[in-house]
Amino acid sequence: MAAESADPTRILVAVNQSTIKGYPHASISRSGAFEWTVKKIIRSNTSGFKLLFLHVQVPDEDGFDDMDSIYASPADFMIMKHRDRIKDSSFGVAGEAWVKKGDPKEIICHEVKRVQPDFLVLGSRGLGPFQKVFVGTVSEFCAKHADCPVIAIKRNVAETPQDPVED
Amino acid sequence: MAAESADPTRILVAVNQSTIKGYPHASISRSGAFEWTVKKIIRSNTSGFKLLFLHVQVPDEDGFDDMDSIYASPADFMIMKHRDRIKDSSFGVAGEAWVKKGDPKEIICHEVKRVQPDFLVLGSRGLGPFQKVFVGTVSEFCAKHADCPVIAIKRNVAETPQDPVED
Repeated sequence: MAAESADPTRILVAVNQSTIKGYPHASISRSGAFEWTVKKIIRSNTSGFKLLFLHVQVPDEDGFDDMDSIYASPADFMIMKHRDRIKDSSFGVAGEAWVKKGDPKEIICHEVKRVQPDFLVLGSRGLGPFQKVFVGTVSEFCAKHADCPVIAIKRNVAETPQDPVED
Repeated sequence: MAAESADPTRILVAVNQSTIKGYPHASISRSGAFEWTVKKIIRSNTSGFKLLFLHVQVPDEDGFDDMDSIYASPADFMIMKHRDRIKDSSFGVAGEAWVKKGDPKEIICHEVKRVQPDFLVLGSRGLGPFQKVFVGTVSEFCAKHADCPVIAIKRNVAETPQDPVED
């Protein structure tokens, strides 16, 4: 029943940048989702899982995002960090990381269709009922439309920065 | 990083009866959610997880559900089956199972508050866009309101019975 199947469970972790501060700042909630996955799902069974990190980059509204490509972008650094972690034998989970540009919910659903993960992990902000109206649309959309099971990791209110610009 | 923490990951699996056929018929989609959890999450790491089976029984609308208690209900049998499975050393995952009566979404959110699982697994029917309007409210409600991460396991369309009464 609980015998290990041949193929590892493939987990797609969608990472985006801060919605308020904008690209290239990573959203805190997304790293929380990754840490949660390792701690609660993968645990010590590093050979049983494969991590797929999808970094979604939202293009600037004015269309001028050429500047970003001059710098080695923080998204690149995050991918390197994930790759380093993946290579780090003390972590030991197989993985891949890549970047796509566009509307996060469309990109995520498209990539789910393409890579067919066993499930998708998304971070979402743990906000009050009032704030909930304005956020969380990416995870709600994906829970409904992605072609695989979706788990949204809400952040503790205690971990929410006072200043939303820091998010 | 991926070191096993002392406490196992506690997974609440909510099991309800068929919405159409009514209590005491188990919903097919719910057993799919359980099988998925074992295959894709627990895998061979049986000591890393604890399964909590919440069976939700919806009271008859007319209030006469005394008849049900005359029979050893199928819910009882399901719990016994889960308990047997839990005791079966070839499965080897620690677990508990219990029944609550009431509105599934309210019961589930209440039990999440009470037992504080690491995450909640729910089955949901894999239906077309038209049918989606009428179903899936339990998982959508819980994804929004439960005080823990929620993963909804959609059933393959191929596994959906032709006759909804069989569901």
